Amino acid sequence: MKSIPEHLLQLQGKPVDQIETPALVIDLDAMERNVQRMAEFTRKHQVRWRPHAKLHKSAEIALLLEQAGACGHCVQKLSEAEALSAHGVNNLYISNEIIAPAKLRRVAQLAQVLQARGGKLAIAVDSATGVALLASAMRDVSPDTSIDVFVEIDVGQGRCGVPPGEAALALAQAIGEHTALRFAGLQAYHGRAQHFRSREERHQAIAQVIDDVVRTRDLIAASGIAVPLVTGSGTGTLINEAASGVYGELQAGSFLFMDADYARNARDAAQPAFEHALFVKAQVVSVQQHHAVCDAGHKSHAIDSGLPTVHQPDGPASFSYANGGDEHGILHPAPGGDQLPTLGSTIWLIPGHCDPTVNLHDHLIGVRGGLERGLVERIITVDARGALR
Amino acid sequence: MKSIPEHLLQLQGKPVDQIETPALVIDLDAMERNVQRMAEFTRKHQVRWRPHAKLHKSAEIALLLEQAGACGHCVQKLSEAEALSAHGVNNLYISNEIIAPAKLRRVAQLAQVLQARGGKLAIAVDSATGVALLASAMRDVSPDTSIDVFVEIDVGQGRCGVPPGEAALALAQAIGEHTALRFAGLQAYHGRAQHFRSREERHQAIAQVIDDVVRTRDLIAASGIAVPLVTGSGTGTLINEAASGVYGELQAGSFLFMDADYARNARDAAQPAFEHALFVKAQVVSVQQHHAVCDAGHKSHAIDSGLPTVHQPDGPASFSYANGGDEHGILHPAPGGDQLPTLGSTIWLIPGHCDPTVNLHDHLIGVRGGLERGLVERIITVDARGALR
Repeated sequence: MKSIPEHLLQLQGKPVDQIETPALVIDLDAMERNVQRMAEFTRKHQVRWRPHAKLHKSAEIALLLEQAGACGHCVQKLSEAEALSAHGVNNLYISNEIIAPAKLRRVAQLAQVLQARGGKLAIAVDSATGVALLASAMRDVSPDTSIDVFVEIDVGQGRCGVPPGEAALALAQAIGEHTALRFAGLQAYHGRAQHFRSREERHQAIAQVIDDVVRTRDLIAASGIAVPLVTGSGTGTLINEAASGVYGELQAGSFLFMDADYARNARDAAQPAFEHALFVKAQVVSVQQHHAVCDAGHKSHAIDSGLPTVHQPDGPASFSYANGGDEHGILHPAPGGDQLPTLGSTIWLIPGHCDPTVNLHDHLIGVRGGLERGLVERIITVDARGALR
Repeated sequence: MKSIPEHLLQLQGKPVDQIETPALVIDLDAMERNVQRMAEFTRKHQVRWRPHAKLHKSAEIALLLEQAGACGHCVQKLSEAEALSAHGVNNLYISNEIIAPAKLRRVAQLAQVLQARGGKLAIAVDSATGVALLASAMRDVSPDTSIDVFVEIDVGQGRCGVPPGEAALALAQAIGEHTALRFAGLQAYHGRAQHFRSREERHQAIAQVIDDVVRTRDLIAASGIAVPLVTGSGTGTLINEAASGVYGELQAGSFLFMDADYARNARDAAQPAFEHALFVKAQVVSVQQHHAVCDAGHKSHAIDSGLPTVHQPDGPASFSYANGGDEHGILHPAPGGDQLPTLGSTIWLIPGHCDPTVNLHDHLIGVRGGLERGLVERIITVDARGALR
């Protein structure tokens, strides 16, 4: 178990300005509003939610989401599941393929542990080899345990997953040959569609997804195999899957923090008004004639979905952020402005992509009462930081 | 101190194929050849080397470099210096600006600790405010300790640093007013020039750097202040600074591992033939009709300087790597080929940029005897992983 360093524990109850930079800060009020919006949305649509823990990688946050109604959590890696289960998270779905026999033995061990606690482990497959290797590990390691297995179909992401249709039926049948494996349904996630900017593009993409899912589901059902659940979706398209009547479970995770990239999507009126809740606190360490420099670069935040944007709690941002390398950001006056920030002043950044940003940090600093005058309420450990295997 | 997990310790002595994926693997033979090449190069040019530890963030590697002749280490952040000093590294230079008074008190404490061990701490400044705050912290916290202070000048990077000339002289004079601060010379690093692709661009850029440094150095010297050292340079341009007669110390760090981006520079015959020594070991977890998928995405390797390239130990790479998100890479046949990798097979990736890639991992797995048939020799802890403050 990771311990929280003394200097971070001592921050609790202190004002925001005592947080050393760069640091990853959660606006707890905003985060909790996002959780409530998501809970209300899923109640209204009578759909389960199993938010993706690859975002926050924290057992504390996972349990908070369960309290609000989440039925469990997705993870992308086995070691994420192990890290969360070590801190009391009992319903976990590895929405990804695992092939290595040594890892599949750990999957079987974890399935046994969670079942003994009254929880459940699930996993995705997209090959007959994967089914056979999983069944073999379950038989060898935990013969009295069962695991839920979803067949992943590729609905436009172009990554893992078999094509919709016959190939998925063949895998469902293969799963049925093993008593320890329970065919749990279809994994169908169109990741790229989450970031299509216009409502129309997203609607069209998910309409096609639904067609593919329904066709595959009906084919499997027609062969006499029940399809208990279709799972997938993300923060960008959740209104579409929720309204489909086909998806029984939403995997959206990013709604919790909302990154700068999701803010570039044109919002549909049906989508809950999620707010930015995760920020990099940075400090201006150099002021030169035409630019200033802050102490947060891409070792502080991920840049795969673009650079962070500057957030000014009290109004529109006066500065823009440009890449300054691993440990620096370059600040220029925002368009129409001419002021540079002062040496030592605080800069708040909204990460371009929250998932890999959180993965850079061992702890998140939870602030209550706003970024300007708030107090540090608690330090949240990123239990599965760096959990890649 | 970070402990090494049991499952990693048990890898020692085992064949490479038992390393679970994704993992960051050092080819120790290649790394040690790079170290020898650097040691020979600096001996030949009679220049000191203080390699940048922001690359490897590991005390074990820092001490190995000292044994080969390095005079100490650069770091970019105070917490990196603290993490390395906790494991016996005693000569450290924070080649960056620090403004926060709470951090400057830690700087003063660290200076005291290192001085007591016979070592030394150095830091860079680029403002009168920074000089005054540093002097104040030294006076308050460790009045009997001295710290080396370099004035950073901006020689083309456009980040921190005052302009060459009068502004640097003013800071050298300001430093001289404080007995605890010793003016140690000039910090002059042109980071962008490291990645200029042609020899001519790099030569021209560093020729301009040398002009700016000499002008500034001579101005300060003419005022009666000795300029003990000029420090800077990187792996891309080290032949230029080494031959200048002006730089007394080289900060190049990337030579140790050599990333895919540095491999895109046209090599100058004078440059030592550094080899790739750092690799992401990945596994193919899905094979579809026109592509395959491996289990390493940008939570396994940084992509700020481009995607990783595929390394095939026994010949030219059969596959190319495309972005598949946080946890996946998409593999296609290399141009002219039509084969996809087999399910479960191993893929070796050369990171686009080693520094932020290492920062994603808690441990590096050191292999002896090559990537195909080698054995795991030792597990190296990334002591300063995530050390941002």
